[in-house]
Amino acid sequence: VSRPARGSTPPPLRWWGWGDRDTALAEPFLALLRDELGAASEAPPECPRIEHVSLLPGALPARLRRRLVETVGGFHVRDDSEERIRHAAGRSYLDLIALRSGRVAEAPDAVVHPASDEEIQTVLRVCADADCSVMPFGGGTSVVGGVNASRDRGRPLIALALDRMDLLLDVDRSSLTATLQAGSRGPWIESELAQRGLTLGHHPQSFEYATAGGYAATRSAGQASTGYGRFDQMLSGLRMLTPTGALTVPAGPPRATGPSLLDVIAGSEGVLGVISEVTVRVRSRPRLRHYAAWSLQTFHAGAGLIRDLLQSGRAPDVVRLADAEETRASLAMARGAAARMARRYLAARGHASPCLLILGWEGDGQTVGARVRAASSTIRGAGAVALGERPAQAWLYDRFEGPYLRDALLDRGLLVETVETSAPWHEMASVRGAVVDALRASLEADGTAPLVGSHLSHAYRDGASLYFTVLARRLEGDAVGQWTRAKRAATDAIVASGGALSHHHGIGLDHAAWMTAAHGDRGIAVLRAIKKELDPAGIMNPNKLIPPE
Amino acid sequence: VSRPARGSTPPPLRWWGWGDRDTALAEPFLALLRDELGAASEAPPECPRIEHVSLLPGALPARLRRRLVETVGGFHVRDDSEERIRHAAGRSYLDLIALRSGRVAEAPDAVVHPASDEEIQTVLRVCADADCSVMPFGGGTSVVGGVNASRDRGRPLIALALDRMDLLLDVDRSSLTATLQAGSRGPWIESELAQRGLTLGHHPQSFEYATAGGYAATRSAGQASTGYGRFDQMLSGLRMLTPTGALTVPAGPPRATGPSLLDVIAGSEGVLGVISEVTVRVRSRPRLRHYAAWSLQTFHAGAGLIRDLLQSGRAPDVVRLADAEETRASLAMARGAAARMARRYLAARGHASPCLLILGWEGDGQTVGARVRAASSTIRGAGAVALGERPAQAWLYDRFEGPYLRDALLDRGLLVETVETSAPWHEMASVRGAVVDALRASLEADGTAPLVGSHLSHAYRDGASLYFTVLARRLEGDAVGQWTRAKRAATDAIVASGGALSHHHGIGLDHAAWMTAAHGDRGIAVLRAIKKELDPAGIMNPNKLIPPE
Repeated sequence: VSRPARGSTPPPLRWWGWGDRDTALAEPFLALLRDELGAASEAPPECPRIEHVSLLPGALPARLRRRLVETVGGFHVRDDSEERIRHAAGRSYLDLIALRSGRVAEAPDAVVHPASDEEIQTVLRVCADADCSVMPFGGGTSVVGGVNASRDRGRPLIALALDRMDLLLDVDRSSLTATLQAGSRGPWIESELAQRGLTLGHHPQSFEYATAGGYAATRSAGQASTGYGRFDQMLSGLRMLTPTGALTVPAGPPRATGPSLLDVIAGSEGVLGVISEVTVRVRSRPRLRHYAAWSLQTFHAGAGLIRDLLQSGRAPDVVRLADAEETRASLAMARGAAARMARRYLAARGHASPCLLILGWEGDGQTVGARVRAASSTIRGAGAVALGERPAQAWLYDRFEGPYLRDALLDRGLLVETVETSAPWHEMASVRGAVVDALRASLEADGTAPLVGSHLSHAYRDGASLYFTVLARRLEGDAVGQWTRAKRAATDAIVASGGALSHHHGIGLDHAAWMTAAHGDRGIAVLRAIKKELDPAGIMNPNKLIPPE
Repeated sequence: VSRPARGSTPPPLRWWGWGDRDTALAEPFLALLRDELGAASEAPPECPRIEHVSLLPGALPARLRRRLVETVGGFHVRDDSEERIRHAAGRSYLDLIALRSGRVAEAPDAVVHPASDEEIQTVLRVCADADCSVMPFGGGTSVVGGVNASRDRGRPLIALALDRMDLLLDVDRSSLTATLQAGSRGPWIESELAQRGLTLGHHPQSFEYATAGGYAATRSAGQASTGYGRFDQMLSGLRMLTPTGALTVPAGPPRATGPSLLDVIAGSEGVLGVISEVTVRVRSRPRLRHYAAWSLQTFHAGAGLIRDLLQSGRAPDVVRLADAEETRASLAMARGAAARMARRYLAARGHASPCLLILGWEGDGQTVGARVRAASSTIRGAGAVALGERPAQAWLYDRFEGPYLRDALLDRGLLVETVETSAPWHEMASVRGAVVDALRASLEADGTAPLVGSHLSHAYRDGASLYFTVLARRLEGDAVGQWTRAKRAATDAIVASGGALSHHHGIGLDHAAWMTAAHGDRGIAVLRAIKKELDPAGIMNPNKLIPPE
């Protein structure tokens, strides 16, 4: 058993944003925002102050509080304002808007920090007895309302924080699996595995803060999922503690023993129980990483190239194709002469609106070399212009930077949010077009014409994910309405055009209203039946994932 | 839409065995059986005659029969003895023993052959109204009691045969998916795809008769699953018709939209509804197949080699390692001089009890070449002695032959059956030892010391499947008890030693009693809750998969 040492995990998220540091925006990028969106005012507003958040006092019944204290100890039942605010919301654009403005609609009545499966099990029993809702809380990084305090009628609500459940319990070097408590965070997992010559290889953008339990609960996908697999594919076994007891899937290779209970737990987003432990498939640490970049003349050409690589057995481990709009923004963000030169060079090669492609291979020298060689003629055949390793290294270096940039953009009066889906190859163009059109139409109707960039990543033989980044001038006075309308339009477009309701962000509160459209009446009935069996009092993470009857 | 032409599917299974032809056993193999098991009597018994099967008359209520005839037409509601016997059982050893001896304990009261989703849905409604159980019946190849007529108390029972649901509905050449009706059989699927330059690459031993719906319902794995994936991984979408309506999972790449309903349907073995349609991920037909064989000095060395190949990113598409016992039997089956030479050559190289390893790679010339090269030093490093392509080609040629041989062995008074599991690498040796010991001990106690061979196949980064073949003299007068005891001992040993209850045969009637041990009380409660929601009258495939309360 390994326990995280002090300093091996990142400092807490700023209560109103991401990380614990500011990020500067490049001047060309600011110019682009000013010129095209009429946004990006000069002076960043002051840092919000937690005393300005108005919060109703917590209303945890005294008897319940006593029993929780008996279970986890008084120090681990917190109902001070700061703790409640820190566990009131995730990190979507609307979450950040609300936190920054001091408008926290709901917060849990208390935050409980158990340290063992037994303590969690008792907390669940005690809460069920008291009709108190329980919201499991891992890294708090959900961008779809997965960890927003949402009440079930007038019931009290606690957040069940998993930060004390962060042990590495076992590493099996023969089967290459690692067993982790659910609160283990990305960097800690990787640093412990690295000491043993191993890696998990799961790097979502939330990597610095997200937890193993959250990865499982949401079906997270990391940036190298094309090669390393999605988190649900990394799961060898896991345990979920429900109000009616533990549901344990023993670790092991695939089996044919009926419906997959592992796949019932994965993606359950805290509405069935608390994932307390996962066993994941790990790998030897790659000795070689080869990342390189190319420019494609069109997104269509790039998507075709990725499809060809996947379908011919030449998949790299990382694929990432930005459209012309996202590439333009990236070039503006890359300060200095290199970006200008790249633009001129590509224009001379006929790439007036280049689409940046990044491919990455990881492994030992022999396999990486062979795979890169096998892919090269396909890449050349698609008309890709090689840009070398530099732009890819820059992406790799900056790949967890998005949420920091978002804070800086919010400071400057911007709307900034992402939308994602997955689609089969034959519907990729129509899904992408439908989403971009829907976002543009909604935001133009508000007089805030946006920049909408998109990229294709997480590629499979039969399709890929599409990820959209939206930038617009924030409609002061109706920021919430502005994005709510645009998001609704985008989600309607996704569902109508055949895209998945989510590829890796999950459902939470934000997508629950579309679940019946996505899964049909029988599908939702199955989810409800499972919930009723495991959580008969309906205390787990209310209003998330499964739409109300 | 493509429809199978006459002759594109194999002739019906012999009602009492496999295929439609006899197979001769090689003399050295017969000698081995005689010498070591005291079995293999000279004269094969006569072919069983269907008139000798005693069967209670079908007891389908007249009103139900009328409604079924209204739904699918009179010609497609069959209650003659032959049709009932042909849908009374699967193809396990005990099934064959029962059929050959004319002791068919139960048969469906009628066999209904719907031709569309609408007809299936109506049949289910009509049967629910009449309290009549429904057993979905695809290829009839289950070896674990998945399609054995088993009654729910005194209720009538029909078999719902999917043989008329055999259309290829769609092929998407861009996303590389094919949509098939559930009754489509392996050879027909491959021949249709081959005409389009495609392949599914799913080749279980039951390939000639098994159906796409059965593959999905059981979580089947084909012999090339190491490269092509298990059938559940090939599934992009599917539809299950339940007594309460259709549950449809739209085809598409992976998504993060809650628990995976696809993985609730996959493996459901007909107890939740009838899988009527699947969309599967297909591939370009490989231009090159490279299969070769090696000898390993020990099973342990071979397992370590396979593990190394998988864990270093050098996995072949087919891996198959036989232990010394299985290799000895294979050599005895391979008639003639080549086998004798191989034995001598290997003995000279220090492989007194050789373990045969077959590895196969499929794809285009460039990728196959690179992958074979990348694997070669690992193979050499494990002390493998190359045997060239011939033995691997022979295996490939004979790979659907097992069930034919079984008929021939049954003719000669043998007990012949298989047992399978999967295990993590770190438990491979102990699971294998426990199962072999349990089988030996049980059969030796009956005075019928067995040959137990095993092989490792279907390899993953974290483990592999283990497959055991048991040969012994049949205990005339107590053949059922003899195998029932041995099978129980083997299954107890699997569960106790940490193996999976099944890797790819499934649960059916035969493993249902161990389901609670494998999944725990909460796991079984979830399965029951799903069943109750989709099949509230409990008419679907009674007594299979989920143990009775």
